[in-house]
Amino acid sequence: MLSVEALRQLRAALGEDKVLTDIEDLVCYSFDAAGGLGEHVPGVVVMPSTAGEVQAVVRIADKYSIPVYPRGSATNLSGGALPERGGMVVSLLRMNRILEVDTDNLTATVEPGVIIQDLNDACAPYGLMYPPDPGTVAQATMGGSVAECSGGLRGLKYGVTKHYVLGLSVVLPNGEVARFGGKTVKNVSGYDMVQLFTGSEGTLGIITEITVKLLPLPEFRQTMMAAFLNLDSAGRAVARIIEHRVIPATLEILDNTTIRAVEEYNRCGLPLDAAAILLIEVDGVKEAVEREAPKVMTALLDSGASFVRLAETEREREQLWTARRTALPALSRVRPNMLVEDATVPRSRVPEMLREIGKIAEKYGISIGTMGHAGDGNLHPTILTDISDEQEMARVRQAIDEIYAAALRLGGTLSGEHGIGRTKQKYMEMEFSEAALETMRAVKRALDPKGLMNPGKLVGEVK
Amino acid sequence: MLSVEALRQLRAALGEDKVLTDIEDLVCYSFDAAGGLGEHVPGVVVMPSTAGEVQAVVRIADKYSIPVYPRGSATNLSGGALPERGGMVVSLLRMNRILEVDTDNLTATVEPGVIIQDLNDACAPYGLMYPPDPGTVAQATMGGSVAECSGGLRGLKYGVTKHYVLGLSVVLPNGEVARFGGKTVKNVSGYDMVQLFTGSEGTLGIITEITVKLLPLPEFRQTMMAAFLNLDSAGRAVARIIEHRVIPATLEILDNTTIRAVEEYNRCGLPLDAAAILLIEVDGVKEAVEREAPKVMTALLDSGASFVRLAETEREREQLWTARRTALPALSRVRPNMLVEDATVPRSRVPEMLREIGKIAEKYGISIGTMGHAGDGNLHPTILTDISDEQEMARVRQAIDEIYAAALRLGGTLSGEHGIGRTKQKYMEMEFSEAALETMRAVKRALDPKGLMNPGKLVGEVK
Repeated sequence: MLSVEALRQLRAALGEDKVLTDIEDLVCYSFDAAGGLGEHVPGVVVMPSTAGEVQAVVRIADKYSIPVYPRGSATNLSGGALPERGGMVVSLLRMNRILEVDTDNLTATVEPGVIIQDLNDACAPYGLMYPPDPGTVAQATMGGSVAECSGGLRGLKYGVTKHYVLGLSVVLPNGEVARFGGKTVKNVSGYDMVQLFTGSEGTLGIITEITVKLLPLPEFRQTMMAAFLNLDSAGRAVARIIEHRVIPATLEILDNTTIRAVEEYNRCGLPLDAAAILLIEVDGVKEAVEREAPKVMTALLDSGASFVRLAETEREREQLWTARRTALPALSRVRPNMLVEDATVPRSRVPEMLREIGKIAEKYGISIGTMGHAGDGNLHPTILTDISDEQEMARVRQAIDEIYAAALRLGGTLSGEHGIGRTKQKYMEMEFSEAALETMRAVKRALDPKGLMNPGKLVGEVK
Repeated sequence: MLSVEALRQLRAALGEDKVLTDIEDLVCYSFDAAGGLGEHVPGVVVMPSTAGEVQAVVRIADKYSIPVYPRGSATNLSGGALPERGGMVVSLLRMNRILEVDTDNLTATVEPGVIIQDLNDACAPYGLMYPPDPGTVAQATMGGSVAECSGGLRGLKYGVTKHYVLGLSVVLPNGEVARFGGKTVKNVSGYDMVQLFTGSEGTLGIITEITVKLLPLPEFRQTMMAAFLNLDSAGRAVARIIEHRVIPATLEILDNTTIRAVEEYNRCGLPLDAAAILLIEVDGVKEAVEREAPKVMTALLDSGASFVRLAETEREREQLWTARRTALPALSRVRPNMLVEDATVPRSRVPEMLREIGKIAEKYGISIGTMGHAGDGNLHPTILTDISDEQEMARVRQAIDEIYAAALRLGGTLSGEHGIGRTKQKYMEMEFSEAALETMRAVKRALDPKGLMNPGKLVGEVK
């Protein structure tokens, strides 16, 4: 698919060392974190280090009709980074400069290859933070997380990536550069292309510069954990916290399967009989936190928590967080493989959704540990399986189908934060009418008429 | 343009009383709040009361190629509601039901004709609010404010309309209904069409249902005013407040021309020699506010405020707010007409922008009073003029051109919250490259191929 002439031009544009064609190199770009989707070896990997170089390679791709796959750290959980049609992977990891932390305007401007945590490290000395907090904050790039509109642990109080992206520079599929937005929170000049590109999964162009809003770091926080013998009590506790008009920074839930896996992994004294554990953190001005934390404790106890704990020291806080932080590694040890799903429901339906997941696991005789962001209804049913066992995988696939059907039935959505990518396209018709899907395809067609930008993702192959 | 047959079908679809054709009625829909743009009498005004009726009229419009102008309260300040090509105004005022206030999920679902203040009144008993706060909150509709992505006084701390819109039902230009989003803050299923329609100025379809996020009402607030003898001190005060990592709910500025007009209008004791007044309100948990307010006072005094006042009672608060609230009526008395512009710059550039506006007023011998949202950089230079004086208006138009050029030069944008509509299209090429504009036109073409939805607005006539 990749002509000798196209390769020659890529090398001329970037220099030899930024154009990878050795199979040993290419294989490293043939998968992403979703797993189980097979190896998709690209024809070439290019590593531009400037927006101009991105333009150059996109122009060559346009000229020779080469599929283009933008890629950050590939922590993607929906197969969004897979170069399925061969073609050219554009790795943005060399564009990793933090261009500015503007402490007057509370903004930062970065290249797409900057790791999220690195941005936060650069902001912290000024008492500032970039709030979006996906689990992969130490690996994922800003470009990838904007392209996927990452969520994370702080969605309830702080929102998600799209609430922080103020401006973008984008290389369009024809190689032209467009700038949208800027440093201001208020901006209604033209269609909101910043928001359209945010979460577009690399299907409309390549992001080459990002300006985000920063917030002051909260000066104080308190962390609490509670265990519940049944899911309804846990759900009631979540509702009561909100009834008290407390909006925690994080409000996480772990189900019994996850609790058992975590306790097995690192004995931290979790109650094995609990149906669910909630982990709550409130943050902000010290006095405010000191008033909100007791309200949360009251809500937990009033809802029938069998066990409540408030971290008195940073060390105790770390202990409480250990359960949540080790949930995925703990679950991953149970069986050879782990599929992390991403079903989202309105907050009030979380207990119902957890029960549905339990029923589905039982029906198909599979093991599912669910953890997630109870505060914003974003759950991660995590299927523990063996992808080499075709019989079990058939049941797993049916179970996944039913999980998404249940989420939609409860007023939720297919994806809270992992994206549609490749893995969830088949469910799109369950969430959207044909007319709604056609508007999305029309957008794709309009902005990428040749269909070369991360083809096959999000809206599928569009002609 | 409107055939007898089309009218007959509109009447058959809605009933006689929802289809207006008398000239006395039509004239009422021939302008919006922008003013000075002439009368544009539509061929017909329809007043659907259900989404099904909206579908019916849009289908008829599609069939007979009738331009469609969705309209709420027409408080629009950029000519976005003008039926310039005749055709059909679709008034959404009869679709004014608050469908749900969901206190568990902190969302509300409304029809587009609901007045913003009515939604807030419905939420207040539950201790909740819908934060976007445009000046016209008592008149503007939710549909209009979503279509325009209204900003308002609380942008710095609370963001703008787009940060609260979670779900939309839309009647597309072909008459099909599409639903996007839902009740969850996290939703990355497909392109973010919710955000694309938010701020699209009615050019892509008609919004028929809106789900928004609510927040707990702040339990306490404190309001402060300070006067400054020069603009730099005022700018320094804004910077120092942010340096203290305090994010006020409102941070308003009034310039000397506005101060004089206000004092003339209602003697409230404003210092006539002040170059600027800042009005600051911090809100939240009581103890937090009680710590933040003194920090603000310190920042004001340290920056050289000539006069500082903190409201000790609700009555004193009202007094402080009077200056801001009466600014527009006060300015409107100075000359026969008033043109409220909407230039936005990064917060740190506000003093520079105010100086630029002063220079431009002097250069063209016109009077400009500027007030605005200093906290988010969104300024409203308000030109006091007589639109019947063609000589003066020629100078006014040049001044407006220069104001927007200055805003862009300072890293700002053409519109923070009033929209592009008709009045600012001519400046779009100053903010966006041709490639960027073409992506917007491509979106318009893709979603409204016949160009019938609020034609001529935002991206202009697109073929």
